[in-house]
Amino acid sequence: MIRALVFDVFGTLVDWRSGIAGEAGRLLAPYANGLAKGFEGGAFADAWRARYNPSMETVRSGARPFADLDTLQAESLPEVLAAFGITGVPEDVRRDLVQAWHRLDAWPEVPAALMRLRRDHWLAPVSNGHVRLMVDLARRNGFVFDAVLGAGYSRDYKPKPALYRDAVAAFGLDPAETLMVAAHSNDLAAAASHGLATAHVARPRENGPAGGEGGPSVPVSFAATDLADLAVQLGC
Amino acid sequence: MIRALVFDVFGTLVDWRSGIAGEAGRLLAPYANGLAKGFEGGAFADAWRARYNPSMETVRSGARPFADLDTLQAESLPEVLAAFGITGVPEDVRRDLVQAWHRLDAWPEVPAALMRLRRDHWLAPVSNGHVRLMVDLARRNGFVFDAVLGAGYSRDYKPKPALYRDAVAAFGLDPAETLMVAAHSNDLAAAASHGLATAHVARPRENGPAGGEGGPSVPVSFAATDLADLAVQLGC
Repeated sequence: MIRALVFDVFGTLVDWRSGIAGEAGRLLAPYANGLAKGFEGGAFADAWRARYNPSMETVRSGARPFADLDTLQAESLPEVLAAFGITGVPEDVRRDLVQAWHRLDAWPEVPAALMRLRRDHWLAPVSNGHVRLMVDLARRNGFVFDAVLGAGYSRDYKPKPALYRDAVAAFGLDPAETLMVAAHSNDLAAAASHGLATAHVARPRENGPAGGEGGPSVPVSFAATDLADLAVQLGC
Repeated sequence: MIRALVFDVFGTLVDWRSGIAGEAGRLLAPYANGLAKGFEGGAFADAWRARYNPSMETVRSGARPFADLDTLQAESLPEVLAAFGITGVPEDVRRDLVQAWHRLDAWPEVPAALMRLRRDHWLAPVSNGHVRLMVDLARRNGFVFDAVLGAGYSRDYKPKPALYRDAVAAFGLDPAETLMVAAHSNDLAAAASHGLATAHVARPRENGPAGGEGGPSVPVSFAATDLADLAVQLGC
């Protein structure tokens, strides 16, 4: 019996690519006007996101102490701007661009589905985002969580074991009573290795033209077409 | 300007003494019948609570790794039972008694006041209770928090600096934008020493016949008669 649902957030609950593409287009337009090829917000979002995993690896490996995603995104932004040939972006605009990760919109069915799931389950993000980032996304989209777990709580990044183990322990449950919900098979494989139940949510447009996971590539407890479908499968 | 409110919970938001007194009376009645003096639930609650601070001190001092309040309460329970001359309490009843700390009721004005405060502020417990304890109390009483900070998040106990500093950092605020709300002057003095704003909430019946703090004994930013009064003072 599932008692708590713990969620991946970027890609699973919110559409990071459209949000970052739009905000990058808006904020960088004054500095990208001279580019011969024009500016592709989606490609910019992809390039920034591509630096996400290597930057977290510096923390996972122990090479540096825990630093939150705002810090990592701010560190990787100059390389992304340079790769796009964008120069002269003032510090306050760069800061605002990092904050765009706090202003992402949910996939359409998510807010109502979370409300249904919350009636009979505890809910918490287990994201690589820190507390403030989760609080901002939750307030913007009307998510109500029982706790905020994940990188801030565990001071490390998925798929390190601490994040899954700490989430189970925080709720005081058996691992099998805790359902990790994600659109990413690698996250679910890691959760399953610690005994958690797993639910895959299809997000075939997560990466825009490059697609996304339309289904799990690993064994899962539930495979859902979206979060509303998962709620139905759980009898909510 | 105050942007986040962080709350002490036991005594400030919930009435631990009445709750523990009632549950101890109910659960221990079969084992306390032979006592010459009868059984006083309130005195039992006071005796158990008196062991709360010394037990947390074993963690604060570094003498042992972090152990949550369920563990500490379970460890101190046998001494309290012995002090009251109560014997033969089975393990499952002892466990249920520890869980009584998860079934406490809010002071009457708290749920509605939290809803008002939540409109314009982020809210989080910064309690010595761990995540599951906060989740259970929140669900029982209809509290909606943005995050659960405190002992579980910081792996230590108030008034250690980490709890106040981690709360400020989790919300990404300046200390002065964070308001520590408590019915205990020592908690507020510790918060103020780290730059947080402070609000005292009077709980003159927290300790039953022994009273409680009817007002702060240290300088505070706000002194309120209850949480509804604090909401008014904050313009909510």
